[in-house]
Amino acid sequence: MEVMSGKNLWCCLNNGDVVEKMKRLGRLTCRKIWKVGKEDKRRVIHSLKVGISLSLVSLLYLMEPLFKGIGENAIWAVMTVVVVLEFTTGATLYKGLNRGLGTLLAGLLAFLIERIANESGHIFHAAFIGTAVFLVGAMTTYMRFFSHIKKNYDYGVVIFLLTFNLITVSSYRVDSVLKIAHERFYTIAIGCGICLLMSLFIFPIWSGEDLHLSTVAKFDGLAKSIEVCINEYFSDDNINQQEEKVRENSMEMEDPIYKGYKDVLDSKSSDETLALYASWEPRYLRSSSWQQYVKLGTVLRHFGYTIVALHGSLQTEIKTPQSVRVLFKDPCIRLAREVTKTLKELSDSIRNRRKYCPEISSNHVHEALQDLIDALKLQPRLFLSTNSNTNILLALATLATRQKSGKDFVASLSSVNNDNSDRLGLSHDKKSLRATLSKIGMTSLEFLEALPFAAFASLLVEIVARLDLVIEQVVELGRVAQFKEYSHDDVVINVSCDNNSRVGSEFLPSHSATD
Amino acid sequence: MEVMSGKNLWCCLNNGDVVEKMKRLGRLTCRKIWKVGKEDKRRVIHSLKVGISLSLVSLLYLMEPLFKGIGENAIWAVMTVVVVLEFTTGATLYKGLNRGLGTLLAGLLAFLIERIANESGHIFHAAFIGTAVFLVGAMTTYMRFFSHIKKNYDYGVVIFLLTFNLITVSSYRVDSVLKIAHERFYTIAIGCGICLLMSLFIFPIWSGEDLHLSTVAKFDGLAKSIEVCINEYFSDDNINQQEEKVRENSMEMEDPIYKGYKDVLDSKSSDETLALYASWEPRYLRSSSWQQYVKLGTVLRHFGYTIVALHGSLQTEIKTPQSVRVLFKDPCIRLAREVTKTLKELSDSIRNRRKYCPEISSNHVHEALQDLIDALKLQPRLFLSTNSNTNILLALATLATRQKSGKDFVASLSSVNNDNSDRLGLSHDKKSLRATLSKIGMTSLEFLEALPFAAFASLLVEIVARLDLVIEQVVELGRVAQFKEYSHDDVVINVSCDNNSRVGSEFLPSHSATD
Repeated sequence: MEVMSGKNLWCCLNNGDVVEKMKRLGRLTCRKIWKVGKEDKRRVIHSLKVGISLSLVSLLYLMEPLFKGIGENAIWAVMTVVVVLEFTTGATLYKGLNRGLGTLLAGLLAFLIERIANESGHIFHAAFIGTAVFLVGAMTTYMRFFSHIKKNYDYGVVIFLLTFNLITVSSYRVDSVLKIAHERFYTIAIGCGICLLMSLFIFPIWSGEDLHLSTVAKFDGLAKSIEVCINEYFSDDNINQQEEKVRENSMEMEDPIYKGYKDVLDSKSSDETLALYASWEPRYLRSSSWQQYVKLGTVLRHFGYTIVALHGSLQTEIKTPQSVRVLFKDPCIRLAREVTKTLKELSDSIRNRRKYCPEISSNHVHEALQDLIDALKLQPRLFLSTNSNTNILLALATLATRQKSGKDFVASLSSVNNDNSDRLGLSHDKKSLRATLSKIGMTSLEFLEALPFAAFASLLVEIVARLDLVIEQVVELGRVAQFKEYSHDDVVINVSCDNNSRVGSEFLPSHSATD
Repeated sequence: MEVMSGKNLWCCLNNGDVVEKMKRLGRLTCRKIWKVGKEDKRRVIHSLKVGISLSLVSLLYLMEPLFKGIGENAIWAVMTVVVVLEFTTGATLYKGLNRGLGTLLAGLLAFLIERIANESGHIFHAAFIGTAVFLVGAMTTYMRFFSHIKKNYDYGVVIFLLTFNLITVSSYRVDSVLKIAHERFYTIAIGCGICLLMSLFIFPIWSGEDLHLSTVAKFDGLAKSIEVCINEYFSDDNINQQEEKVRENSMEMEDPIYKGYKDVLDSKSSDETLALYASWEPRYLRSSSWQQYVKLGTVLRHFGYTIVALHGSLQTEIKTPQSVRVLFKDPCIRLAREVTKTLKELSDSIRNRRKYCPEISSNHVHEALQDLIDALKLQPRLFLSTNSNTNILLALATLATRQKSGKDFVASLSSVNNDNSDRLGLSHDKKSLRATLSKIGMTSLEFLEALPFAAFASLLVEIVARLDLVIEQVVELGRVAQFKEYSHDDVVINVSCDNNSRVGSEFLPSHSATD
C-alpha cells in the first residue's frame, strides 16, 4: 500500500502517457508484494516487528525528557536493532549473544592494552596501538578460518574485531574510555533488550520449528516422488509419449517427481543453519536433538539420491517393454505403496512429536519386498528373452530331460553347482550349443530392454534398504528429542492432516516434550 | 608465533604444575594453526591484509598533523574496513558497492524526509520521524524477502536501513546533517578505498578463480570416484571382506569413492555464492559465464547422483557372484576408463580455459558402451542362472529341437514374436513346464544375485547418457566464457599436471580470454 501511494505521487508529477505504464507496473509490483506475503505470513509479521522495534529505539532519541544522557549514544541502539533482529528467534539470539560476548571481550582486551600503552611515551604509544591493531586484526581474521569458530562464532569474532578497534582508536584521543564504554554498553543493552522482547514474546518465529517442519515436508516430498515415479513407470500411456512428457518436464524442472525430491537434495546448508540457530533457542535446550535432525537430513538426502536414480530409469534411453512392466506391476506398486505409507507414517510421527514404532509398518515393506522377489523368482525367463522363445526352449528341454534321463537329471542339477559346469555342459554338443547361442543373440535385444527393469527393481530394493536407515534415525530422533510415546489413535487422526503446513506453521500446536 | 608468546607469558605467571599441560595445549594449538594455514596459504595472506588495512585506517586517527578534522569520524573508516574487507575480491566489491549504494540512497531519502519534517512543528516533527522510521523499517525488511533482492542486494538493504535510521535520528538533534554526512562519506570513502586497494592489487583472491578451480576439482573427484568404484566392484578380493570394508568406510565417511563425489553433491550454495561474488569482479565482466558455471554445477550434481547409486550397488545386500562380475569385467572397466578419461579431458580443458572438442573422446565412450552392450547380448544365459544349469537345459533343448523338428524350429522361433506365445508354449505340456519352472525357482536365487549387476550395468549406461549432458554444458561454457580454441599439443602437456591446484592456485597462469 505504501508503495502504491508513492507510485501514485510519482504519477501525478509526471502526468502524461507514462501514467498507464506506471499503473501497470504498480499493479505488477502490488501482485508481487502480495505473493511474497501470502507465501509465508510470518514475513509480514517480522517486517512489522522490525518497524516497531526501530520506532521504539528512536524514542530514546526523540523523547528528550525521558532519556537524558542516553540520547547521544542512541545510534548504538539503532545499530544493534538493525543488525541483530533477525527472522527467527534463534538467529536473533545467536547474533545478540555473539554481539554481547564479542563486545565484552573486545572491551576487556582494549582496556588491557590501553593500560599497557599508557605507561609508555606518546610516540611509543601510537606505535604500540598501531602494532596491537595489526596483530589483533590479523589474528582475529585468521581465527575465522577455523571451521568450529566459523560455524558457531563468526559474527561474534567480527564484532570483537570491530569493537576492539573502535575502542582502541577512540581511546587515543578521549581519556574517559570507561565512561564512553559504559554509555555505549547501556544503549546496546537497550537495543538487545528490545530485540529479545520482540523475538521471544511477540509472535516468535522459531528456527527449531522451521527445521522440524522442513523435515516433515521432506518426508512428504519423497513419498510423493516415489508415488508419481511408480505410477508413471507403470502407466498405460503410450510409452514413447510418456517418456517424451517426462523429458519435457525434467527440462522445465516442473516435474512433480523432481519437485518432490529437489528440496531434499540441496537441504544441507539450510538444515545446518537452522540447526545452529535452533541450538540457541531457549525452548529447545537439548542441542543434540538438532544435531539429530541434521543427521536425519543426511540420511534422507542419501535416500533421495536413490530416488533420483529411480527417476533416471524413467528417462533412460533403453525402454522396458510394456509387457515386462505389466508382469511386475502389482508387486512393484505394492512395494512402492508400502514405502510411501511408511514415509507418511514417519512424517506424521515427527509432525506430532511422537515416537515411531518400527514394528507396525516396516514389516509390511519387507513383506512387499519378499513378494517382489518371489515374483522375480517366478519369472526368470523374462530376463533371457521377452518374447518367450526361451519358454519354448525350456518346455522342450523339460521334455528332453524326461525322455532322456528322467529323475536322474534333477539330481545332477542340484549337484552341479560350480562354475566349471558350463564347460561340462558345452562338451556334450559344442557345435549345437553355439548355434543356440547365436539364436539367442538374435533375441537378446529384449534382454537389453529388460535391463532397465532390473535396474528399476534393484533400485526399489535399494530404497527399502535405505528406508531402514531412515527409520533407524527417526527412532533415534524420537529418543534424543524425547518425543511422546506412540499411541494408535493419534496416527489414525493425523494421517488426514493436510501437508501444506508451512504457511500456517505458527498456528500448529507445539507442545514439545522438551518444553 | 604471537599466540605462543602470549602463552609463554601466561605460563610464567602461573608457574606450577600446569606448565606442562599448558605447553601441550600450546603445541596442539600451534599445530592446528599451522594446519589451517597450510591448507590454504591465501588465508595467511588475507589475515595479514586485514591487519595492514586496519593499521592504515588507524593512522587517520593516530597521525593528527596529517589528517585534521577527519580523525573524529575515523571510526567509520575502521567500521568499513572490518565489515567490507572479505576473503575474495568479489565479496569485497559486492559488500563495498552495496554499502556505498545503500548509504547513498539512505542519505538521499533521509534528506528528503528531513526537508518535509522541518516544515512542520516540533511535536509533529517527532511523530513524523517516528512514522517514517517505522514505515521504512517495515518496508525495507519486507523487501529482503524478495528472492532477487535477497540474492543480490541483501547487504545493501541492511546498510540502507542502518544509515537511514542513523541519519534521521541524528538529524533530530544535530542541525548540520549535511556537514556530518559529508565528513562521514569522506571517511567511509577512505575505508572503501583501502579495502579496494588491498583486495584488487595486493595478492588479489578471485572468487571467479575459486569457482573455476572448484569446478575443475569436481571433475577430478568424480573421475576418481568412478575409477575406485569400478576397481572395487571387480577386484579379486574376497567379496564379503571387501563389502565389509566398503561398509566400514562409508560409516567413517573416509571412503575414497564418497570423498570424490561428496563435494559435488553439496556444492549448490557455495557455487551460487561464488558465482554471485565473481559477477562483481572486474576481471571477469561476462556474468553470464558464471551462470554457466552454476548450470554446469547442476548437471555435475545430477551426474554425481548416478555415481551415488553406483556406489550403492557396491553396498547392496544382494551380492553379484564373482563369476558374473568376471565375465563383464573387461567391457565394464573399459567403459569406466573411457568415462574417467573423458572427465579428465573435460577437467583439463576447463583448467586451461580451452574449448572442448566432443569429437575426440566422446566416440570412444560410445564405442566402449557398444562393447558392453555386445557383451551383455552374448551372455544372456547368465541372467537366468549363474551356475549354468540353464546351459545344460539349453544344450538339451537344442538337441531336442534338432531331433524333433530340425530346421523348422528355427523358422518358428523367428516368426513367433508376440507375448501370447508363452501360452502357446505352455499348451504343449503344461505340467512338465511347471515342473521345470519350479526347478528354475530353485536356481533363481542366482538370478536375484545377478539383479544388482543388471542395475550396475544400467547405471553405467545412465552415466554415459548423463556424461553427454555434462559435455554439452562444458562446450556451452567454452562458448560463453570465450575459451581458447582447442589445440592438440596443449592437452598432451596438461594431462600430466597435478590436480592439487587449490593450494597453489594463485601461482597458476590465468591468461583468460576474458581479460
